[in-house]
Amino acid sequence: MANAMAAPTSKLLYLDDLHVGRRFTSGTHTLDERQITAFARAFDPQPFHTDPEAANETLFRGLVASGWHTAAITMRLQVDGGLPIAGGIVGLGGELAWPKATRPGDVLHVESEVVDVVPSRSRPDRGIVTVRSETRNQRGEVVQTTTVKLLVPRRAKMDGAIQKTEGG
Amino acid sequence: MANAMAAPTSKLLYLDDLHVGRRFTSGTHTLDERQITAFARAFDPQPFHTDPEAANETLFRGLVASGWHTAAITMRLQVDGGLPIAGGIVGLGGELAWPKATRPGDVLHVESEVVDVVPSRSRPDRGIVTVRSETRNQRGEVVQTTTVKLLVPRRAKMDGAIQKTEGG
Repeated sequence: MANAMAAPTSKLLYLDDLHVGRRFTSGTHTLDERQITAFARAFDPQPFHTDPEAANETLFRGLVASGWHTAAITMRLQVDGGLPIAGGIVGLGGELAWPKATRPGDVLHVESEVVDVVPSRSRPDRGIVTVRSETRNQRGEVVQTTTVKLLVPRRAKMDGAIQKTEGG
Repeated sequence: MANAMAAPTSKLLYLDDLHVGRRFTSGTHTLDERQITAFARAFDPQPFHTDPEAANETLFRGLVASGWHTAAITMRLQVDGGLPIAGGIVGLGGELAWPKATRPGDVLHVESEVVDVVPSRSRPDRGIVTVRSETRNQRGEVVQTTTVKLLVPRRAKMDGAIQKTEGG
């Protein structure tokens, strides 16, 4: 991923800083045949991911990246500044879809939007933020969508966050 | 993934062979610190995935694998015989969750079950099969669940599959 061009990392954001509708855009990553086949040999060794010749005879009509490779690149772009969450990007799970294949030469970036913010009732130091992300290629086509729940810390009390007072 | 012990690959299955409730079990894969940090340096470079010392100071209290690494290993175990689908494992998307962290020394395997089979109305040569999978560690704890829609071919007509007759 040496060619991943990271977006400038903004100030890291806590739960208190996030609101529904807040958007983020990552840097870019350029995929090539070598990356696609190397990932696939390790994790998804199927002909349409490992063998450009054999891939021509499949329903993809050419080499395509494993969906899990697209997911991993998406994560890298978000860690490199595309989703500046304090405490790191800790996903609990969510939904994903691959509406279009990713191919050699594609230049990917990720656009993300906060779609839900829920402070924890039992743990006042954290909450759950739901982020919907679209991974797009150089033509603007969406190759992956994810909606993932993230564990996000709140600012410490001394930072001025208003806490519910017991019996108040 | 050289230490992935593949389950014996059964006969490859077409849509016509699959029914709700059919189950599959993969071989196993043993994770170690080197694999976890190598994947994370490439795709998810956060301290709890790359640095055993720094990981002790995080909410994980030790090194854990990236969830996308667990997802990639799950795919490898399914390609290596854990989910013997004709035409390959072609996922369109679905849901995933990581209820528990994956750590160095974990021995993972995947248990899968067919939960839906829907022949295509417009394309008589294929259909969509939904598979729910649990990735479990050596203690039987579920570290990942996925529910994924797969594109699965039907047997060709000459193989004896009964096709709807036009105007019949």
